Amino acid sequence: MFSPLLNELIQSLRVLPGVGPRSAQRMALFLLERNRPGGARLGDVLLRAMTEVGHCQECRTLTEEPVCRLCANTARDRSQLCVVESPADVLAVEQSGGYRGLYFVLAGHLSPLDGIGPRELGIPDLMTRLGRGEVRELILATNATVEGEATAHYIRESCRDSGLQVSRIAHGVPMGGELDGVDSHTLARALSQRQQI
Amino acid sequence: MFSPLLNELIQSLRVLPGVGPRSAQRMALFLLERNRPGGARLGDVLLRAMTEVGHCQECRTLTEEPVCRLCANTARDRSQLCVVESPADVLAVEQSGGYRGLYFVLAGHLSPLDGIGPRELGIPDLMTRLGRGEVRELILATNATVEGEATAHYIRESCRDSGLQVSRIAHGVPMGGELDGVDSHTLARALSQRQQI
Repeated sequence: MFSPLLNELIQSLRVLPGVGPRSAQRMALFLLERNRPGGARLGDVLLRAMTEVGHCQECRTLTEEPVCRLCANTARDRSQLCVVESPADVLAVEQSGGYRGLYFVLAGHLSPLDGIGPRELGIPDLMTRLGRGEVRELILATNATVEGEATAHYIRESCRDSGLQVSRIAHGVPMGGELDGVDSHTLARALSQRQQI
Repeated sequence: MFSPLLNELIQSLRVLPGVGPRSAQRMALFLLERNRPGGARLGDVLLRAMTEVGHCQECRTLTEEPVCRLCANTARDRSQLCVVESPADVLAVEQSGGYRGLYFVLAGHLSPLDGIGPRELGIPDLMTRLGRGEVRELILATNATVEGEATAHYIRESCRDSGLQVSRIAHGVPMGGELDGVDSHTLARALSQRQQI
């Protein structure tokens, strides 16, 4: 029922995660009827971002600069390196307020069936960096999923002979959580890793 | 925490209806990490659509062509004209499968406080078109809201002396709906507009 260009716009909006046919239609009509300047600005920024945003030479996070602002920040503690799966995880750790070191972004986890091995995650680059000797503690903050655990395990094994201090973030009952609402797998972990107080 | 261009992308995505800060961040990272060609295509289509899509000279719906495909379709019944509030409503009526006439899209409803009067809704154009004599029945299909009802009432009054057949779509209990789940305002309307069978 819509014109070819309007149909193309609705189809194109469906590349966005969580946007189905109804939302895509609502978004297209909203922009055309109410906010054409906003829509044009989004189009322009999308085109620039898709070509200009690359990866930080140091930590592999997404940035259009050669080295990201966190890696370039001389106030950060260069002896700690926190390994995470995605740029969003960097934000999550920063927002926790409890970390002043640097990051290394794998951009995924080991997934041999999808052809994602150590090379795709930049693990050789990570080893080269650890070899430079600046980092003294490696904090593995991959997700608490099967793939995240396997990836953490692989990295732990890869630097077994480096003499580096390697740690894994703690898993257990979330703060504010009630025992009743926690799955048994998490609770078993919380019990087995209990700490003396 | 993100680079300036990535922050700009996240901010720009928030012009989309229903997209808050978390979804905008998820969308930006998803496009950059998984679907740059799709993101670039969306950027290109957005820029073209925001400048090229205008309004049909006949029915005022959104289209990049001078006259939309529905208005240009000679198989449609030119004696019936259905007045709706938005291009999405044209789609809704078409999908009902029960209408073969043409449309007139107001692109809104009367809303004096927002400066939307008859002129902004193209009602003078509608009257000119009705004056051409091709249309014999005018079907008012504005929303069943206070504003939609007021708009339908205004148009009904405006063509009081035209000798035109004017109708309003029926309001009542939705098909498949149970009386128990229908609000009392709708049920009162369904009762007062009961039809002999």
